[in-house]
Amino acid sequence: MANEKAQKSVNPELPSGTKDYLPEEYLPKQKMLDSIRATFELFGFSPIETSALQKEEVLTGGDENFKKQIFNAVNKDGEDSTLALRFDLTVPMARLVASSGDKIERPFKRYEMGKVWRGEKAQAGRFREFLQCDADIVGSASPIADAEIISLMYETMRALGFENFQIKINNRKILNGLYEYAKFPQEKTNDLIRTLDKADKVGVSGVEKELKDKFNFLEDEIKQIKKFLESEFDSIKNSPEFSFGANELLRTIEIAKNLGVPEMFLKIDLSLARGLGYYTGIVFETVLLDTPEAGSVLGGGRYDDLVERFGGAKTPAVGMSVGIDRLFSALEKKDLIKGDSKISKVLVLNFDEMCEEECVKIVSTLRGEKVPAEIYLGKEETLKGQLAFAVKNEYEVVIIVGQQEKDKGVVQIKNMVARTQEEVKLEEVSSAVKNILYS
Amino acid sequence: MANEKAQKSVNPELPSGTKDYLPEEYLPKQKMLDSIRATFELFGFSPIETSALQKEEVLTGGDENFKKQIFNAVNKDGEDSTLALRFDLTVPMARLVASSGDKIERPFKRYEMGKVWRGEKAQAGRFREFLQCDADIVGSASPIADAEIISLMYETMRALGFENFQIKINNRKILNGLYEYAKFPQEKTNDLIRTLDKADKVGVSGVEKELKDKFNFLEDEIKQIKKFLESEFDSIKNSPEFSFGANELLRTIEIAKNLGVPEMFLKIDLSLARGLGYYTGIVFETVLLDTPEAGSVLGGGRYDDLVERFGGAKTPAVGMSVGIDRLFSALEKKDLIKGDSKISKVLVLNFDEMCEEECVKIVSTLRGEKVPAEIYLGKEETLKGQLAFAVKNEYEVVIIVGQQEKDKGVVQIKNMVARTQEEVKLEEVSSAVKNILYS
Repeated sequence: MANEKAQKSVNPELPSGTKDYLPEEYLPKQKMLDSIRATFELFGFSPIETSALQKEEVLTGGDENFKKQIFNAVNKDGEDSTLALRFDLTVPMARLVASSGDKIERPFKRYEMGKVWRGEKAQAGRFREFLQCDADIVGSASPIADAEIISLMYETMRALGFENFQIKINNRKILNGLYEYAKFPQEKTNDLIRTLDKADKVGVSGVEKELKDKFNFLEDEIKQIKKFLESEFDSIKNSPEFSFGANELLRTIEIAKNLGVPEMFLKIDLSLARGLGYYTGIVFETVLLDTPEAGSVLGGGRYDDLVERFGGAKTPAVGMSVGIDRLFSALEKKDLIKGDSKISKVLVLNFDEMCEEECVKIVSTLRGEKVPAEIYLGKEETLKGQLAFAVKNEYEVVIIVGQQEKDKGVVQIKNMVARTQEEVKLEEVSSAVKNILYS
Repeated sequence: MANEKAQKSVNPELPSGTKDYLPEEYLPKQKMLDSIRATFELFGFSPIETSALQKEEVLTGGDENFKKQIFNAVNKDGEDSTLALRFDLTVPMARLVASSGDKIERPFKRYEMGKVWRGEKAQAGRFREFLQCDADIVGSASPIADAEIISLMYETMRALGFENFQIKINNRKILNGLYEYAKFPQEKTNDLIRTLDKADKVGVSGVEKELKDKFNFLEDEIKQIKKFLESEFDSIKNSPEFSFGANELLRTIEIAKNLGVPEMFLKIDLSLARGLGYYTGIVFETVLLDTPEAGSVLGGGRYDDLVERFGGAKTPAVGMSVGIDRLFSALEKKDLIKGDSKISKVLVLNFDEMCEEECVKIVSTLRGEKVPAEIYLGKEETLKGQLAFAVKNEYEVVIIVGQQEKDKGVVQIKNMVARTQEEVKLEEVSSAVKNILYS
């Protein structure tokens, strides 16, 4: 407008680590989200929506490590330097549960789809804004709840068309016994778990190096840890340090199998740790066997102490998170998802001003019959030009009304796929179009 | 974990101006969003997704006025002080169109549902994070496009069940002629438009006052502006200052009627301005006649210059935005929407450890038949306690398997609505449950 500054041309650049989706990408993504939503609802999870903007203290729980991972949201007055964008959906949900008290029935089974942000430095290939999709069972300590989440992972993947994947499972309670087995100080367990979480990126040698250099583990300790990581589950499951966690793990797997998860999709992995501090029991990750280097596409575990962070009673919980954008790339690569590039398949041409009213009414009639339809709105003024637009944009049905048709009270309907054309009466347009599209 | 700081109790408070939705609120909201999505798709709008995080310059176009309205997103390193959260969905879409060039076919009809943020001071009753839902036609200067958006507003409202509403329409090109009519300097048009936008809050006298005190309009100018605002459309439509804009307005309304919008839902309102600087032509707002004080629930207009802000060719556009949260409160107040408080209606009880395997398999079988079902995961260990949970949470079907049932290979199915119970064979559970739920 009158403001000259507003008139200067602005570079239309996106921040690094963010992404826009055009319809040809978003339509298949929406199909994927709809499939996930349907699977979650089949399991009886109900949707919630939490605020993206949260108090910094709520997100970090006072842990300085988290502050490096978040974006603060600051307005002009600077009054809100304590606001931040959520980095996952679990913490806002825990906040909601804690503050809702008796308004929420336990167990509370909920899912949420929403954006999360990581306030990391910009670097190639790392998203700083992405969509997550979580399902959680809050207020149940039952191993059936853990198995339900594992079964949900399996059914979610199957509904999307994946066949070659594996759900890796471990129990934090096994890893928590490792200090006794490897004889290192118990308080170093957390350092060990964070380091193990990088194993798929840096390998066992990388883990060894970091334990030694960063956390001062002794050589004997590292040797024992390595021995443990290379053990078969069966050979350690009865050791006193591990037996409790191992039995819990076996029971969960048994229930998951009864819930219909074939054994071949499940794999105990003693090195699986999951980095986040809040896990307390069973942890799991789904990896694609064709592209293991892509890392996990689904992950989660039991976190019995998180809700307590916000006061109130002990509230055991278990849940999982779908990495939507990573999973979507996998779907695209494997050609498992095909979307249309547009919603409507029907275009009413509009090349003769004298017939505009008829054209407008036809598109309105089609919509009244629940047939998605469009009227040509572009610059081409000739029948030929508009037809070329319809071909390029892959419309399946094109409707033509010129002066001749108007006089006769008919329209021409072109079936662009079959390359046929028929003349039908004005009042029969809808049924003729439906006949082409849905039969 | 070991970190003591992380263990201290955190106050589970939400930032002011934000809101969480529990399932009993979110399920009806989701129903509303699904209805809006279906209407948008019926009109041939395709979904896109834009990044919430944007460069500050992209959002503000260098206009200092906008900086007061945004949240900057700042990470620990402070490297990203130029990042900000979008305050609407239109500007990110314009950015996407400008940067996509030929990858997007024009006209481009798109919709988006997503969160937006306003970095205002916290004040009671004002949302600082809320969901918006936009539909736009980009790359068409046709008045049919304007009428399509008006028709879309109408059909969106009708599909949601609203009957008593009005779509107010005006043309910026009429208001742009006002400087000639009221004889004030042309460059003051923007100040006038911003002030008019507040008319529904501060009234005509408030507008007069602000024009005089804040923008130094002269008394004679204000008198003429007032006279204009109080005019009937018919009495000014042929004045040379207004006739072009008035004719455009009448043509658009004519097309909207042909698209099926009954005349009684349309009202020309010469005082309608819409505050945003980027509108250039037709503007419109939908108000609820039962609660006009709630302000507009849908609004939009034509903005032919916005895409150009980012360079490239002239790209005329028109669109509208649904204020989801405001519209949802209206739906709730008028009892037009009723959602369930939970997704699944079927609960399999689990009170006898010896029958757990059977219970788990039943829930899996039901899900395999696409019946949303749950297994009891709470603390109650008795049949009676679990039944009480089912009653309280309004499950419609409860499935019971005890030792007796297990031995006989049957289950008890309780129809909680009809208060009946039947014993069926294990392999007939699904059909019996479907019979209760869907017949």
